[in-house]
Amino acid sequence: VKLARRAHRVRVAGFRLAGVRAGLKSRGRDVALIVADPSAVAAGVFTRNRAAAAPVQVARVRVAAGRIAAVLVNAGNANAVTGAAGRRVAERTTAAAARALGVPPAAVVPCSTGKIGVLLPEAPMRAAVRAAVAALSPDGLPDAAEAICTTDAFPKTAVRRLRLGGRPVTIAVLGKGAGMIAPDMATLLVFVLTDARLTPAAARRVLRGAVDATLNAVTVDGDRSTNDTVLLLASGAAGNAPLRGGAERRFGEAVRDALAEIARLVALDGEGAGRIAEILVRGAASDADARRVARAIGSSILCKAAIHGADPNWGRFVCAAGNAGARLDPERVDVAIGGVVVARRGRALAGRLARAGARMRRPEIRIALHLHLGRGSGRILASDISVDYVRFNAEYTT
Amino acid sequence: VKLARRAHRVRVAGFRLAGVRAGLKSRGRDVALIVADPSAVAAGVFTRNRAAAAPVQVARVRVAAGRIAAVLVNAGNANAVTGAAGRRVAERTTAAAARALGVPPAAVVPCSTGKIGVLLPEAPMRAAVRAAVAALSPDGLPDAAEAICTTDAFPKTAVRRLRLGGRPVTIAVLGKGAGMIAPDMATLLVFVLTDARLTPAAARRVLRGAVDATLNAVTVDGDRSTNDTVLLLASGAAGNAPLRGGAERRFGEAVRDALAEIARLVALDGEGAGRIAEILVRGAASDADARRVARAIGSSILCKAAIHGADPNWGRFVCAAGNAGARLDPERVDVAIGGVVVARRGRALAGRLARAGARMRRPEIRIALHLHLGRGSGRILASDISVDYVRFNAEYTT
Repeated sequence: VKLARRAHRVRVAGFRLAGVRAGLKSRGRDVALIVADPSAVAAGVFTRNRAAAAPVQVARVRVAAGRIAAVLVNAGNANAVTGAAGRRVAERTTAAAARALGVPPAAVVPCSTGKIGVLLPEAPMRAAVRAAVAALSPDGLPDAAEAICTTDAFPKTAVRRLRLGGRPVTIAVLGKGAGMIAPDMATLLVFVLTDARLTPAAARRVLRGAVDATLNAVTVDGDRSTNDTVLLLASGAAGNAPLRGGAERRFGEAVRDALAEIARLVALDGEGAGRIAEILVRGAASDADARRVARAIGSSILCKAAIHGADPNWGRFVCAAGNAGARLDPERVDVAIGGVVVARRGRALAGRLARAGARMRRPEIRIALHLHLGRGSGRILASDISVDYVRFNAEYTT
Repeated sequence: VKLARRAHRVRVAGFRLAGVRAGLKSRGRDVALIVADPSAVAAGVFTRNRAAAAPVQVARVRVAAGRIAAVLVNAGNANAVTGAAGRRVAERTTAAAARALGVPPAAVVPCSTGKIGVLLPEAPMRAAVRAAVAALSPDGLPDAAEAICTTDAFPKTAVRRLRLGGRPVTIAVLGKGAGMIAPDMATLLVFVLTDARLTPAAARRVLRGAVDATLNAVTVDGDRSTNDTVLLLASGAAGNAPLRGGAERRFGEAVRDALAEIARLVALDGEGAGRIAEILVRGAASDADARRVARAIGSSILCKAAIHGADPNWGRFVCAAGNAGARLDPERVDVAIGGVVVARRGRALAGRLARAGARMRRPEIRIALHLHLGRGSGRILASDISVDYVRFNAEYTT
C-alpha cells in the first residue's frame, strides 16, 4: 500500500495554526501550534500507560478545566521517562507560548512525540514557539499536520461538514500515527477542531464515544504509547445553539466518521506495513469478548505474518482466538477470509483456500469469525508485519 | 546463533523409544513412540488455550488416571480445530498402538504438533505405529527426539543424574519448540522420562513447579498453542524408596534444571531468531507484577525489534512496562542492559549507550529492570524478532 497523500486545505472558524522547524527531527517541520481565539471548549483522551510522558501529565490537568487557548506540539522527542525535569520543560515551553499569545500559562496544552527517554531541549523549542506564533494562519492546517508527523509516510487529515440547527459546521482532524498498531507503542496524536458550539460535558461525551469506536480499535486499549493524546477543541464560532439530543448524536457520528478515516490512514501507514486487515468478530458471548478475540488475532505476530504472506492460515486465527481470554468453543467457529468461508463450525471446508489466498493478496482484507455463542460483536484494524517493518524498527535507534 | 546439536544418547531404565517416518512432514522421522514397561506414573501440564487440540482433549483425561503405558507423538499435523473427527482419529491411532503393545487403549496418550485445521490422516499413522513398535529400543531416544520436531533447527534433549536414597537416578528430557516464543503459538512438547519411583501426587507437584519456573517463562501463560503438552513419566525402575521432603525437593530441582536447559534451547531456536534476551524484573510490588512486566517487554514487537537491532532503546522497555497492567512508577525505574546501567530512577545516565549497545550485540543478553516498589521478582526468556522470522512465518503456509 503506497499512498502519497496531502493534508486537506481547510479553515475552521476560530482557529489559527502553524508548523515550523525546531530541528528536533532530522528534517522538516517539527513544531506545531494550534491557537483558538478566544479560547475553545476542550476535551481529551489520554494514554493509560503508567509511564505517561511529562506532556501528558501536564495536559491532563489543563484539559480537565474544560477550556484551552492553544496546543503546542513537537515531534522528534517524546519527553517521556524524563521525570520532573521533563515536566518543567513542558511547563516552561508552554509558558513561553502563553506569554507570546497573551493567555494564561495553564491555557496552553503540551503534546510531544518521538524518542523516549531524552529530555526535550528547551532552547530550540523556545525559538520554534516564536517562529510559530509569527506564522499562525487560518490556513496553517497543512503545515501543522506535517509538523506533528514522526515516521509517518504521509500527513493524516479528515474533514466533515454538517448543518446543526441551520448553521454550517466544520470538523477538521489532523493526526499522526504509524507503526503504532497493537501490540505496539508508537504514539498516536489526534486533534479534532470544530467551529461547533458545545458544552464541555458534550465535548467529553462525543470524543469518548468516537474514540472508543475508532482509534481504540487500532491502538487497542492496553497497548498504549507513553504519549497518546486525542483532543477535541470547539471554538463555537459557528454560532449554533448548544447541542442537545439528536443534534449531539449527529455531531458525534460525524466526529466518529472522521476519526474512523484517521484510524484507517494510521493502519495503512504502519511503519513498513504492506496490508491492513479488519478483524471482525460476531456471535461472541459479549461485545467485550468479541473485542478481545479480534484483538488477540490482530496482535498475534504469527497472524500478522500470515496476513503479510497472504496465507489463509485460518487455524492460526482460531488458535489466537483461543488465547484471548474470551468464551470460545472451537467447534462452533466459522471463519471467512475476504468473504470466502474457509471453515464452518470449526471444520475446514474443502477447496476454499486458493480463493481465500487470492483475496488475501489485496491491500485491505477482512477476516471474519462467527463464534455462535451470543450476540456480541467487535472489530479492530490490524496492520500486517513485514520484513520492512522489522528492518525499520531495528534501525530506528535511540 | 547457530547450533548444530545432537540429541543425548541416554537410556532411562524402564523405557523404550522409537522414531519413524509416516510422511506427515516433508522429510525425516515424524512419529515417535515412548513406551514404559510396565506402565509409568504420569503427570501432565497442558495448554490452557480454549481451542485445545483433539489429542490434548484425549490426553488430559488419560494422564489424569496417574499411570500410562505409552505416548504416541506425531509431528507435521496438529490435529487441532478438527472437532469430533479429530478426537476419533486420536482415539483410533492410540488404540492401534495399545493393541500392538498389549495394553489398555486408555493407557496410550496422543500428542500432535504441526499444521492446524487439518484432520490427522489415519492410514499413515497406523502404518507408522506398526513400524514404531517394531523399532522400539532402550536406545531410541535420539530417533524419538528427532521425530517430534517440526520447524526446529535441532532436537532438544537434557539429562540430569542424581542419587536418591543411595540409588542412582536418571532424568532424560526430550522436547520440541521453536518460534513459539510469546506472544506466539507454535507448539511446545516436552517429555520428562525418569527411572525414579514417585507417587502420582509427587509427580504432579514436581512437574507443575518445574514448568512454572522454566517453560512457562518462555511460552508465557496466556499465549499458548493449541497443542502444548508437557509430560513426566516415572518408571520406578531405579528402585528408590518413594520420595519425601528433601529428596522430592532435590529431585524437583533436577527436573527444573533440565527443563530450564530445554527452555533455553527453545528460545535459541526461535524460528529465524538471532538473539535471546533474559528479561529480569526486580523490585516489583509482587512476583506476579514482575512477571507481567517481564512478559510485556518480552512480548512487545517493538522491543523484540530493538533486541534484534542491538539497539539499547531502554525507553521502549519502560514504555512496554507501562502497559503491563502492573504497578509502576517510571521515575523509580532502573534499567541495565548487559550489566550496563543506562537509566537510574527513570533518567538516562550519560555516556552509557555505546557500551550497552556493544553488549546487546552478543547472542544472549540480559535486560534488567528494578522497579523500586517492593520485593517481587520475575523473569522470562524472549527471542528477538528478525527479518528471517517474518519471512519464515509468512511462507510457512497451510
